[in-house]
Amino acid sequence: MDTDILIIGGGPSGIITALTARHCYPDKVVTLVRREKFVVIPCAIPYIFGTLRDVEKDRIPDDVLRKAGINLVIDEVKDVDLESKRAQLVGGDEVSFDKLVLAVGSKPALPPIEGINLRNVFHVVKDPEHLVKMKKELDKAEKVVIVGGGFIGVEFADDLSRAGKKVTIVEMLPHVLSLSFDTEFGLMAEEELKRLGVELRTGVKVRRLLGEDFVNEVELESGEVIDADVVILATGAKPNTDLAERMGLQVSRYGIEVDEYMRTSHPDVFAVGDCAAKTDFFTRKKKFAMLASVATAEARIAGWNLYGIKALRKMRGTLGIFATKVGDLYLGVAGLTESIARVEGFDYVVGESTVPDKHPGTMPGTHKIRTKLLFTRVGGFFLGGQIAGGPTVGEIINLVGFAIESGYSAAEYVNLQIGTHPYLTPPPTTPATLTAAQDALTKIYGRK
Amino acid sequence: MDTDILIIGGGPSGIITALTARHCYPDKVVTLVRREKFVVIPCAIPYIFGTLRDVEKDRIPDDVLRKAGINLVIDEVKDVDLESKRAQLVGGDEVSFDKLVLAVGSKPALPPIEGINLRNVFHVVKDPEHLVKMKKELDKAEKVVIVGGGFIGVEFADDLSRAGKKVTIVEMLPHVLSLSFDTEFGLMAEEELKRLGVELRTGVKVRRLLGEDFVNEVELESGEVIDADVVILATGAKPNTDLAERMGLQVSRYGIEVDEYMRTSHPDVFAVGDCAAKTDFFTRKKKFAMLASVATAEARIAGWNLYGIKALRKMRGTLGIFATKVGDLYLGVAGLTESIARVEGFDYVVGESTVPDKHPGTMPGTHKIRTKLLFTRVGGFFLGGQIAGGPTVGEIINLVGFAIESGYSAAEYVNLQIGTHPYLTPPPTTPATLTAAQDALTKIYGRK
Repeated sequence: MDTDILIIGGGPSGIITALTARHCYPDKVVTLVRREKFVVIPCAIPYIFGTLRDVEKDRIPDDVLRKAGINLVIDEVKDVDLESKRAQLVGGDEVSFDKLVLAVGSKPALPPIEGINLRNVFHVVKDPEHLVKMKKELDKAEKVVIVGGGFIGVEFADDLSRAGKKVTIVEMLPHVLSLSFDTEFGLMAEEELKRLGVELRTGVKVRRLLGEDFVNEVELESGEVIDADVVILATGAKPNTDLAERMGLQVSRYGIEVDEYMRTSHPDVFAVGDCAAKTDFFTRKKKFAMLASVATAEARIAGWNLYGIKALRKMRGTLGIFATKVGDLYLGVAGLTESIARVEGFDYVVGESTVPDKHPGTMPGTHKIRTKLLFTRVGGFFLGGQIAGGPTVGEIINLVGFAIESGYSAAEYVNLQIGTHPYLTPPPTTPATLTAAQDALTKIYGRK
Repeated sequence: MDTDILIIGGGPSGIITALTARHCYPDKVVTLVRREKFVVIPCAIPYIFGTLRDVEKDRIPDDVLRKAGINLVIDEVKDVDLESKRAQLVGGDEVSFDKLVLAVGSKPALPPIEGINLRNVFHVVKDPEHLVKMKKELDKAEKVVIVGGGFIGVEFADDLSRAGKKVTIVEMLPHVLSLSFDTEFGLMAEEELKRLGVELRTGVKVRRLLGEDFVNEVELESGEVIDADVVILATGAKPNTDLAERMGLQVSRYGIEVDEYMRTSHPDVFAVGDCAAKTDFFTRKKKFAMLASVATAEARIAGWNLYGIKALRKMRGTLGIFATKVGDLYLGVAGLTESIARVEGFDYVVGESTVPDKHPGTMPGTHKIRTKLLFTRVGGFFLGGQIAGGPTVGEIINLVGFAIESGYSAAEYVNLQIGTHPYLTPPPTTPATLTAAQDALTKIYGRK
C-alpha cells in the first residue's frame, strides 16, 4: 500500500494533522493508521461515569476522516524503516510513505506501589475496551479511591460523586491541582470537593493496595486504611516514545524531540501530541502538557508544514491553557502560575479582580469570577492567568491565552474593546481580565 | 465648590472615567454630578420585568465612587461657562473645574406617531423613577406591543414572555436585529421568539396608537389593529448634545465630536459614552453604538488622557462588540456584518463553522455554535464576526473582538493555542472561531 502522508495514531492530534494536511495539500494521499476500533474524546473520559454514562457517547465519529477522503486503517504499526520509508503493520501489510507523522500518544505513568495489579485497580487510558470494563466495575462500586489529585483525579471525583459514589482522593502534594494552579485556587477546588462529599487526603502517599484477588483497601503512609471497591490511578502519563526510539529518532523523557515546526530529528518525520516533547512558552524549558488542546494546536502546525515550512505556522512555546470543573466551580489557567514564576526567577506583578459573571450580580445563577493575572514588572507584559468562576471561565481563559501569545502589555490590554451582556458577562464597568490588568497597572506605576 | 476634574453624568461611562482618573491622577480632586438618586445598570433594563422583578436589583451601588474618594453630587448641571471654567447647577451651586468630562448619555428617539403621548406608552430611559412606574403598569398588563425589533426590543420581548405576557413586536425592517446582524442570524432570533410565543410583525410600520386616556390598540400601516395594555417604544436613542451645544462645542447628529483621545473641540473638555460621536473601526464613518461596553472603553481612555495624552490609550475606532439573548439562543457580533461589508465596498471572504459548545456533543445542555467570520480576501485579515450559540457566546465574541483589534489574519489566528474542556467549550479539534477561520483560509487559498 502506498501513501504520501502516513499518520500513526487516531486521537485528536492524528485526526487534526490528517484534516489539516488535506486542506493544505489536497493532491496528496493521506492515510491514518490506528489501533482502536473507535476513538474516544480523551478530555471527556472522566465524564463517562456520571454524566455521559456510556462509553459510546464519548466517541469521535470516523465520518470526519471519511468525508475528507482520508484512508483509515485499523491496525498497529510494528516498525518503520526510515531508509526505505516503509511501515510494517502488525496485520502483515506494509505502507510506503513520503512523510510520516507520529501521533502515538502517551502511556500511564504508574507509581511503584504494591498491589497495583489487583483487579479493580484501573489506570486511565484512551482505550474504549478498557473504559467499558472500568465503567462496568464502577457502576457496581460504592467506594472509590482516586490516587492523584491532578485535574484528571479531580474531574473523576466530581463526576463519580455526581453518580452517588463515596469518593476519596489521595494526593501526595499538600493540595489538589498543585501542578497547574496556585494554592488559593487549589483550596477553592478542595472546598468544592468537600461540599460534594469527597474525602480528601492530601500531603500523604499511598503505601500499598490491599486485597486478595480484587482490591478492597488502600493503605496510606500515615497508616490510615481506606475501604475501596475500585481504585483509580490518576497519577499521570508519560510520552509513548517506543516506536520513535526503535526508529532511531532523538527522544528524551519529555518525549520525541521536535522543533517549532513539529519536525523530529528526521526531516520527513513529524511528531505531535502527547508523544512529542513540549517547550514552555516563557521558561523555554522542556515540560509535560498532555492536553488535547495542545495536541491539536501542534497538529495544525504539523499539517501545514509537511511539504515546505510555512514560517508563520510554528509553535512559539506551549502555554498549557486549560479549564477544569469541580461541582459548580470552574477553573482556568494559561501560562505561568505565581509559584512557577517565583521558582523560575521571573520578576512579576500580580493583578487581581473579583467580579460577578453576570450583571447586575442579582441576576439568577450569578457566580463570582476571581481572576489572578501575572505580568512582568518592567513593561507589564502578560505572563499568565488563573481564573475561578462559572461556566464562562473556559472561554475567558482563552482571552488570557490570546493576550499572552500576542505579547500584550497590561496597558494595551485595558484599552481593548469588550462586549458585555447581563446574562453572559461581567458588567461593562468591570470586565474580569481588564479589571485585573488595571490592578496590576496601578501597582506597576505606584498609584493607589 | 472647587474640583480638578468634573464629570457630568453618573452612568457607566461617568463612573469609569471617574475611577480611571483616580487611578491615574491620585492627587486630583474628582467630582461627579448626576441627576438620578440612584443609577441603574442600563444593559439590564429589559431584565427588570421578568428576571429581576425589581428596579432596585438593577442598581449600581454608589459605594464604588465613595470608596475611591470621588465626590458625588446629586444635582443637574444647568450651564457651563468655558471661559471661567465654572458649572452652574440647577440647585444653585457653582463648581469650578480644571478638566470637564461630558458623560450625559442619550435621549429616546421617538417616532412621529399619533397617540405617542397616551398613558401606558413607555419609552426606554435609564431613569429609575420612570422604570418603577413602567414596571407597575407592566405587572398589571396582559398584552404588550413592542415597537422596534432591535436588540432592546427583542430583549424586552424575551423577558416579558418569560413573565407570562402576550407580546407582539412590530419592526419596520424585514427582520428583527437587522441593524446588528445578517439576515440568517435575525431569522434564528425570530424562530426562537416564535417558540417563546412572541408574535412578530416585520416589514410594517405603526400607523398610530389608539385609546382615550390609556393606550389600548396599535394600528399598523397594513391596517391590522393589535390590542395593547402597554406599548413599549424601543425605537432607539439619540445622543444628548443639548449642554454641549449651549457650550459651543462641535456636535453632529452622531453626537459630540471627539478625537481618538476622547477630546472635544475644547482642549479641556472630554466626552464619553452615548453623547459622544463614534467612528467605525473599518469604514471610518460616523455611526451610532449606544452600548455601555463602548461607553466604558471610551471612559478608560478619557480617564487616562485628562492630563497629558498617553498615545497608546486611544480609541482606534468603534467595533460595537455585543451579545444578546432570545430565550435559549445567544447571539454575539463584533465588527462588520456581511451586509454592511457589501454596502461599504469591502472585498471579503466568509468563513463559517457549526460546532457543539460542549464536547462530546452528547454532553447535557449542549448548544450548537454557529460562527460566521469575515476576512479581507487579500491577506485574510479579520473584518467581523457573528456567533449564535449557548451562554458562552458572550465571551467567544470577545475573542473575535480581540482578533480584529489586534489585526490578526486568519492564517495567524488558526495558529493560536486554545484551551478546552468538555463542559465548557467546543472540542479541541474544532474550536468555534478557529474552525471558521480555517474555512476562510481554505477559500482564500483556493483549496477544497
